Amino acid sequence: MKKTGVIAAAILATSFAMPAAAQLSVEDQIEARQAGYQFMAWNMGKIKAQAVDGDVEFNADQMKAAANAIAAIANSGMGALYSPDSAMDKAENTRLKPEFFQQTDKVREVGTNFVREANKLQEVAATGDRGALARQFSAVGQTCKACHDNFRAD
Amino acid sequence: MKKTGVIAAAILATSFAMPAAAQLSVEDQIEARQAGYQFMAWNMGKIKAQAVDGDVEFNADQMKAAANAIAAIANSGMGALYSPDSAMDKAENTRLKPEFFQQTDKVREVGTNFVREANKLQEVAATGDRGALARQFSAVGQTCKACHDNFRAD
Repeated sequence: MKKTGVIAAAILATSFAMPAAAQLSVEDQIEARQAGYQFMAWNMGKIKAQAVDGDVEFNADQMKAAANAIAAIANSGMGALYSPDSAMDKAENTRLKPEFFQQTDKVREVGTNFVREANKLQEVAATGDRGALARQFSAVGQTCKACHDNFRAD
Repeated sequence: MKKTGVIAAAILATSFAMPAAAQLSVEDQIEARQAGYQFMAWNMGKIKAQAVDGDVEFNADQMKAAANAIAAIANSGMGALYSPDSAMDKAENTRLKPEFFQQTDKVREVGTNFVREANKLQEVAATGDRGALARQFSAVGQTCKACHDNFRAD
């Protein structure tokens, strides 16, 4: 169980085999990873408002900054924030299903897809093309949903 | 009061004069900005462990990823998350002093310094120079402290 968890973490960290810091407590891991997702969600919200819904005037600089934040967070090695005892069967304040530490192929797939699409979001935002950004917003959102559907409890 | 708050927000947003999204509730602003600081703190912790304390083996790729995340968050326009009614005299779950919306020169100074040093952190991390990264970690930390000392309650 511990081994598969470490493997899953290493996969999500996308090429980081070593821990980046002294191991955090489970509580701190959960808080830090939720902070990362929440901050990405804020930036996704800005892209939705400007590129998809048009509720707010399109500002290419703001879109670039938002996509940069999302991509940088996605590439920051968040896999280190998933120790095997940090799922909802063992820890509080998380909806992470224990399957996360069992379905390593699926974890690899959703994690790889998410990072790839976040990197594309950064590239597309840099072009200033609103329509392309709206399409890539959707592609990123689908990779978010894939992980939620598989590994986050309702 | 409202005007100075908006000005302070615009300053911290570093060149973003327009709101990036439909205005969030005060509660959502507070949660999103705290998420940003918390995620930066996690990444600062990785740099401290590897470049300053040496508790964890130095990994240049991890340091680059951590600094990228910090810089991207610092440049993401967080000023939009500071509406005048989001200080501790009017809102809950925040230690933001109301002075933040009165001392606009000081807010400009601490915000500009923070973004500048975060950008330098990203540049230094890209070189892979551990000693230089340790020194720049300290420079960034001082800009964090300057804001805490002035605008965050104990």
